Amino acid sequence: MTILIENVWLEGERKNIYVDGNRIGSLCSDGSRDGEVIDGSNMAAIPGLINTHTHSAMTLFRGFGDDMLLHEWLEEKIWPVEVKLTEEDVYWGSKLACLEMIKSGTTCFNDQYWFMKGTARAVDDMGLRAFLAEAFIDLFDEEKADESRKKTMDFVEYVESMGNDRIKAALGPHSLYTVSEESLRWFREYSDERDLLIHFHLAETEKESRDCMEKHGKYPVEYLQDIGFLCDRLIAAHCVWLSREEMEVLARYGVKVSHNPVSNMKLSVGSFFNYRDLKASGVVVSLGTDGCASNNNLDLLEEMKFAAVGQKAFSNDPTALPAKKAFKMATLGGASSLRIKAGKIEEGKLADIVLVDLKKAALTPQHNLISNLVYSANGSCVDTVICNGRILMREGRVEGEEEILENAGEVALDVVSRT
Amino acid sequence: MTILIENVWLEGERKNIYVDGNRIGSLCSDGSRDGEVIDGSNMAAIPGLINTHTHSAMTLFRGFGDDMLLHEWLEEKIWPVEVKLTEEDVYWGSKLACLEMIKSGTTCFNDQYWFMKGTARAVDDMGLRAFLAEAFIDLFDEEKADESRKKTMDFVEYVESMGNDRIKAALGPHSLYTVSEESLRWFREYSDERDLLIHFHLAETEKESRDCMEKHGKYPVEYLQDIGFLCDRLIAAHCVWLSREEMEVLARYGVKVSHNPVSNMKLSVGSFFNYRDLKASGVVVSLGTDGCASNNNLDLLEEMKFAAVGQKAFSNDPTALPAKKAFKMATLGGASSLRIKAGKIEEGKLADIVLVDLKKAALTPQHNLISNLVYSANGSCVDTVICNGRILMREGRVEGEEEILENAGEVALDVVSRT
Repeated sequence: MTILIENVWLEGERKNIYVDGNRIGSLCSDGSRDGEVIDGSNMAAIPGLINTHTHSAMTLFRGFGDDMLLHEWLEEKIWPVEVKLTEEDVYWGSKLACLEMIKSGTTCFNDQYWFMKGTARAVDDMGLRAFLAEAFIDLFDEEKADESRKKTMDFVEYVESMGNDRIKAALGPHSLYTVSEESLRWFREYSDERDLLIHFHLAETEKESRDCMEKHGKYPVEYLQDIGFLCDRLIAAHCVWLSREEMEVLARYGVKVSHNPVSNMKLSVGSFFNYRDLKASGVVVSLGTDGCASNNNLDLLEEMKFAAVGQKAFSNDPTALPAKKAFKMATLGGASSLRIKAGKIEEGKLADIVLVDLKKAALTPQHNLISNLVYSANGSCVDTVICNGRILMREGRVEGEEEILENAGEVALDVVSRT
Repeated sequence: MTILIENVWLEGERKNIYVDGNRIGSLCSDGSRDGEVIDGSNMAAIPGLINTHTHSAMTLFRGFGDDMLLHEWLEEKIWPVEVKLTEEDVYWGSKLACLEMIKSGTTCFNDQYWFMKGTARAVDDMGLRAFLAEAFIDLFDEEKADESRKKTMDFVEYVESMGNDRIKAALGPHSLYTVSEESLRWFREYSDERDLLIHFHLAETEKESRDCMEKHGKYPVEYLQDIGFLCDRLIAAHCVWLSREEMEVLARYGVKVSHNPVSNMKLSVGSFFNYRDLKASGVVVSLGTDGCASNNNLDLLEEMKFAAVGQKAFSNDPTALPAKKAFKMATLGGASSLRIKAGKIEEGKLADIVLVDLKKAALTPQHNLISNLVYSANGSCVDTVICNGRILMREGRVEGEEEILENAGEVALDVVSRT
């Protein structure tokens, strides 16, 4: 199957983009018109956006608990409903998340949560690209650890048995305050053995850092280095509370960092992501939305704005994190972190392409497309989404969206009524 | 003319809303179906949002200069193009702004800029409600002051001669660092005489505060108090750099404050709005987007999110500025500041009503509508906009929008090409 996107605005020029199978074929002016032809004359083409930290099924809890202290929110709201979750709930929550991501121009995401077979099925249906990890928490209990490792391995086998080239298994040890040293070591070995990405929460709060120092006499990154956990397949979300030394260590091991500005601000993690020093250390930084219980959406265009203006506000420097770099975080930064050939529209890359509608007030005038995308637009400027060479949305319409909204909406109300 | 919005979600209940002329008639279940009938069954009704600080024509400069130091941005980008502006440019920039505001659910705005007759004509065309002030800067030069006062009075007469009950003149002394004491005193007198609101920039940067102390031996609010400038018709935008004492003084005089979180973050004003103490002092706080050169959009739904999560981040308290209060800032806070009977949907209030489409991913599930509007949605959830009893948008469509986008887009490129 081929797609021709004709006469589309691409990095300051009018181009034709040919999609051949699941790859971008060429950007030349002539070629076959045999397949699907999309008129790009009122559109700009950008790479599909990449969300490197989310818990997609948590769309079910959007708006269920906000403006609360962290422990009250977890103890009174999230944990009581999470214990009643089923794979079917997760399936519908993930379908809703996929719909929302497609609508707002995300083509690939990195997810860590429970009952992930439900998410895998949803991604299979919806056509996105995803890295999925069954969340792992052992709370330093050996029996729980054994059982949870089995679940992890079972999920990896499940994903591999799907044989879907868009869906890859990853590993999901939750964090150093919920996972034992023995399990962390096991994850590193298992990751080496199967060449799997590890999706981890790191240095989100000051408490995590302080507790680690108390327990191990070391800061989190030093502790993880000592137990041999750090590697270039590790994607660490948050990384707000890091010393310069810890940043250097992350860089040395090639650890990738996912920045989640909205979640960090909304949950008041007490500090702000030190983009400048992390970049100076040489760490690859990408962008994540976190789950809908702490954001409360999955719109990476909005997230780019929070990242860019957040850096300016917190560093007191209006030149900090310019629009182009925020855009790069959500594209090339994500692709490099997830080791996929994406994040840029060029020949040979995966055909993960988003067309934005230039006939929108927020994208007018057209002094600077990237600035408009980062600072002015939101996900609603997206018109067409192609992932892995398949069209998932045309003219803002996704097949079956009404059914997803209705079913996911009902499941969400049912889930919270169970407590 | 009457409008019936049938079976719409309003503050947790299904209601009928009758619009009679430019007022909300009643919220009862029975009544006339003679006029326009809107099916509200998939909608929620919220009050039209109110933007208390913007420079609408600056949509022309959206994306024209970002990520720059303030003085470079002003000197290299904004001022050189502003000196070449014409009333016709401002007309088209304001039309684009009105379109964007309608699309994102704003029905009323408070604007201070140049060539405001152009804005008044745009608002007249577009059907919004607005308070318009010709910007006034005398740079402490008497001749310039005389000339500028004439312009101010001329604009007030112009607006009054329009006889449009949606458009009110206001006064626009720019700030204490650009307007002489004599002129500030004149503005206060003229405002008393004509009962006009005063739209002013206050305490946006530390430099303003420091320079005022150097020049007058007083902080800005103390200085303004001493010269008799403060009154309950004053709307002060930004108010980031205020001492507790200054907050108390603002409260005592009934000064209204417009909070502009995105602009403050993007321009790195060096501190953050102290919502908690301002509220504790009793100051009425509303929400503004500032102009598109420093935001870069006019979407108050997005601005509410920045306000709410910004407060949490900067005060390190996740319970700070909950969603309901952010929503109130953009509705009742604005109405109270601008002295209009709006900001809430109830009998007798102005018929400024927004219908949001509940069949959107960002508004699903429906655990909490206000949370969804503040934290998850953006302006694209707006389906229908009614202002002063007239329907300005149905099903996301505004009459003549293509022409506005095209003309404003061209004007903007032309304006920047003149330098």
